Amino acid sequence: MIDELVEQLRDRPLIDHHVHGAWLSDGDRSRFENALNEGSTDPLPGWDSGFDNQLGFAIRAHCAPVLDLEPHAAADAYWQRRTSLGEAEVARRFLSAAGVSDWLVDTGFPGETCEPEELAALSGAHDHRVIRLESLAEQAIADSANYAEAFPALLEATITQEQAVGMKTVAAYRTGFDLDWSEPAAGSVVEAAARWRDSGGRRLTDPVLINFGIRSALALQKRRGGLPLQFHVGFGDRDEDLHRTDPLLLLPLLREFADASICLLHCYPFERQAGYLAQAFAGVYLDVGLAINYLGARSPSLIARSLEVAPFGKLLYSSDAYGPAELHLLGAHLWRSGTAQVLSHFVERGEWSTTDALRVAGMIGSENARRLYRL
Amino acid sequence: MIDELVEQLRDRPLIDHHVHGAWLSDGDRSRFENALNEGSTDPLPGWDSGFDNQLGFAIRAHCAPVLDLEPHAAADAYWQRRTSLGEAEVARRFLSAAGVSDWLVDTGFPGETCEPEELAALSGAHDHRVIRLESLAEQAIADSANYAEAFPALLEATITQEQAVGMKTVAAYRTGFDLDWSEPAAGSVVEAAARWRDSGGRRLTDPVLINFGIRSALALQKRRGGLPLQFHVGFGDRDEDLHRTDPLLLLPLLREFADASICLLHCYPFERQAGYLAQAFAGVYLDVGLAINYLGARSPSLIARSLEVAPFGKLLYSSDAYGPAELHLLGAHLWRSGTAQVLSHFVERGEWSTTDALRVAGMIGSENARRLYRL
Amino acid sequence: MIDELVEQLRDRPLIDHHVHGAWLSDGDRSRFENALNEGSTDPLPGWDSGFDNQLGFAIRAHCAPVLDLEPHAAADAYWQRRTSLGEAEVARRFLSAAGVSDWLVDTGFPGETCEPEELAALSGAHDHRVIRLESLAEQAIADSANYAEAFPALLEATITQEQAVGMKTVAAYRTGFDLDWSEPAAGSVVEAAARWRDSGGRRLTDPVLINFGIRSALALQKRRGGLPLQFHVGFGDRDEDLHRTDPLLLLPLLREFADASICLLHCYPFERQAGYLAQAFAGVYLDVGLAINYLGARSPSLIARSLEVAPFGKLLYSSDAYGPAELHLLGAHLWRSGTAQVLSHFVERGEWSTTDALRVAGMIGSENARRLYRL
Repeated sequence: MIDELVEQLRDRPLIDHHVHGAWLSDGDRSRFENALNEGSTDPLPGWDSGFDNQLGFAIRAHCAPVLDLEPHAAADAYWQRRTSLGEAEVARRFLSAAGVSDWLVDTGFPGETCEPEELAALSGAHDHRVIRLESLAEQAIADSANYAEAFPALLEATITQEQAVGMKTVAAYRTGFDLDWSEPAAGSVVEAAARWRDSGGRRLTDPVLINFGIRSALALQKRRGGLPLQFHVGFGDRDEDLHRTDPLLLLPLLREFADASICLLHCYPFERQAGYLAQAFAGVYLDVGLAINYLGARSPSLIARSLEVAPFGKLLYSSDAYGPAELHLLGAHLWRSGTAQVLSHFVERGEWSTTDALRVAGMIGSENARRLYRL
Repeated sequence: MIDELVEQLRDRPLIDHHVHGAWLSDGDRSRFENALNEGSTDPLPGWDSGFDNQLGFAIRAHCAPVLDLEPHAAADAYWQRRTSLGEAEVARRFLSAAGVSDWLVDTGFPGETCEPEELAALSGAHDHRVIRLESLAEQAIADSANYAEAFPALLEATITQEQAVGMKTVAAYRTGFDLDWSEPAAGSVVEAAARWRDSGGRRLTDPVLINFGIRSALALQKRRGGLPLQFHVGFGDRDEDLHRTDPLLLLPLLREFADASICLLHCYPFERQAGYLAQAFAGVYLDVGLAINYLGARSPSLIARSLEVAPFGKLLYSSDAYGPAELHLLGAHLWRSGTAQVLSHFVERGEWSTTDALRVAGMIGSENARRLYRL
Repeated sequence: MIDELVEQLRDRPLIDHHVHGAWLSDGDRSRFENALNEGSTDPLPGWDSGFDNQLGFAIRAHCAPVLDLEPHAAADAYWQRRTSLGEAEVARRFLSAAGVSDWLVDTGFPGETCEPEELAALSGAHDHRVIRLESLAEQAIADSANYAEAFPALLEATITQEQAVGMKTVAAYRTGFDLDWSEPAAGSVVEAAARWRDSGGRRLTDPVLINFGIRSALALQKRRGGLPLQFHVGFGDRDEDLHRTDPLLLLPLLREFADASICLLHCYPFERQAGYLAQAFAGVYLDVGLAINYLGARSPSLIARSLEVAPFGKLLYSSDAYGPAELHLLGAHLWRSGTAQVLSHFVERGEWSTTDALRVAGMIGSENARRLYRL
């Protein structure tokens, strides 16, 4: 049963609804190993290997064969082979093996990574753009004296110009979710913008303006249709207060915008809370991307937890890959194998039919995203 | 091993220690499908099917045969058959197939559902009543100028008159659990009642009066014996702040009333926290009802989590069924099959003996409730 | 596969990096049964058996044979056999069967339990000491008028004198972790110490002094090297506010002391949060000891959760045993069998190689602790 499901899932292209660019130019081993740690903002300690964790083991198990090595190749051998091929060839191999038809790329954190078009070209897939609110806000404060009008205008213009299909907020990193989510009073946005500009207008962390940005995005979504708003939730680097990203803290906002299309990304370790919100609000969706890669051999249990109280029409696939293209492939591979394992367990116990299992896998892998993002 | 356990459990009647009435009169498909969503207070969106979730799949798997359909019957076929039989016949079939000897019915939220006596008659079982504090409080404020004396008097009179075996609070919905749980000062109850009456005396949400109601109930329990107080905990509709229903927030109250008989209901996703409280306090019990139905194929993992730090004498069975009688049956069926699966896994690995497994299943299924509620 | 792993792990000695003494003198049955409940501070209720929980079942399954009984021996038979052997012989049997090479003993909560040297002698292992900050603080306030200098001096002197390898804080019990973790102002430590002394200087619960104690320990660690600081996290008795021991509440402290060696102990039910911190900070380690014993047949799932986002070089083994020596053995036994089960599942699914599984088990069982504590 599991083999049948794995085979069926292998041939179905996925929509990766939240991803970043891949590296195309060569880097050293510390760049690579540090990219396998999401939580830390420091270099790895000397005694540690960036491979000694679930993600590193999963790369050795599943990515090594794509580079013509045996599964579970040693870390040194893996690095050597990777270097001899060069980053561009490595990226080409992984991206084309991922079986993804559409990449929805968050371009708000570019670093050394490639453009959406390059991702598409290397994989024979389509690319789409997702606009990060806080990056635009930082542009708006620099360019305009009238932030309260400039930001919504810049947001709409950017979306039109880039033909973006969605928006994204990193409020999780900037304020956490335990905000006063009520509508800011008329003057308070202007005042907060002035304070921010006076303090240099760098990284946006003002709660009034974070709230204002999100509300502007939801107003635009209502007016234009489509344009789901993605929220980074849970697992991320240590700059965020992880406990302040429990998505239940979004309840006041969700109750006010009860029909808004909202995607809760990653969610670990709050995936049950996110699933609950997906049941409670018609427009709330979730994925457990990013964490699937980091959990490696343990990711089937995470996928299983995402299949609890969330309606099946509200689950999405993403990799949240950034940097090494191993992550673009591995997210897809682990999602397929983990989903096959979880669903075949349901079927073997007589809880689901095989037909249902295939239908739900198709919904999560691409159909829900196609409907939601109007692809 | 699992087959033996399933068979043994099939023949043992359960005590459903927290349940509501079933529908007996016909309704349309949207009433039915909306009843399969606990979190949302809105109608389902047009594109969604109320069957496309774990509960819907579990109904198609396990309830369809009771209506003479094949397991996994299509949603349309299921609805058609259900309609042709009529709600009363549907209810009769499911209630009598549930294998429940005693229903403890929370009558505080009646809606279109039947009376406890009807539930008993249709299933050949006994019925008992559980009194909801907040419903009585709303009666007391309307009928009396002296709330602080009227509420405890009405509570005791109602319990005597209805021969109630327990009490229930929905503080989770009204205030959450992050209250000041200390004893309200003499005048503050009177003042809070006056404020509430002046504002119309509708839905009770005043924290002083919620606290007062619970303390009145615990005082009555101490004086009369028996009469456990049930707390709605966790999973429910989006009116509640789910994160404010973490049962650990009850610690100050539990420490003050360290011997009180208290049942934590549902608990998802705080079942580990609830299990901890059941170990820490001699009078605290828990169930994972309601969530078992909503988790469907995933419910064995929830049952397994409830079998962690809670002493086995502190676990109870409930369905929390309300409305479609599928829920009254399915709760019992999923509890039996999930418990058999979890316990046989313990036995197969040599961790438990078969005798122990059967004994613990009997404790959770009925013996603990019989002792606690003095049935 | 699982048999091979079990066999390999059976022969490898463990380092129990957080443990207490065992009882050597006889006690009555209520002492024993109450020792099987961690959460409650009251005697067990009359109807309950201290054996009717996962820990009790695990003792009957795995400890009974060490006392020459059949696995799953009845509770009465177990108690009878235990009594006839006497506590000292019982301790000798369990301690020598545990397969532990080094005990790191927290001596800050002695009760009726034996000294580290006795633990070592009975098991043929080495003993090392871990110094509890709050016990020393209570000594310092009694002995000195100048607490702000006396405490750090006493801490360093004690560590030198006892050749301690680590330190421990029970801030979880005294204040919880939602403290103001910023550096206390110059005068505030002196003032807080004066207030504490004036109020009798008993149990330290002042947040300024808890913070000061931890900061003094981290300063000493930086100066001397080694000396990891252990934090009690999560599961414990009901005196603590369990929800205030979420280790994410330590983030401000961890960000300030980003290289400090810190061990998060027990962690249940916050093991995912603890694993995240172990990824985010180079010096943070965790174990799931104590909870492994209390979860018994369910402990493999806990061990599996600890193997999610934490790097494998950051996981440790402990029993946190205290009192009955069953706990010293059972922690080791359940860790070995649970780890073998979890890792062989990874290997069977092709996610890990056998070589990797053995290597990681060795890291967690002893190598990480040997490096960290400089044994």
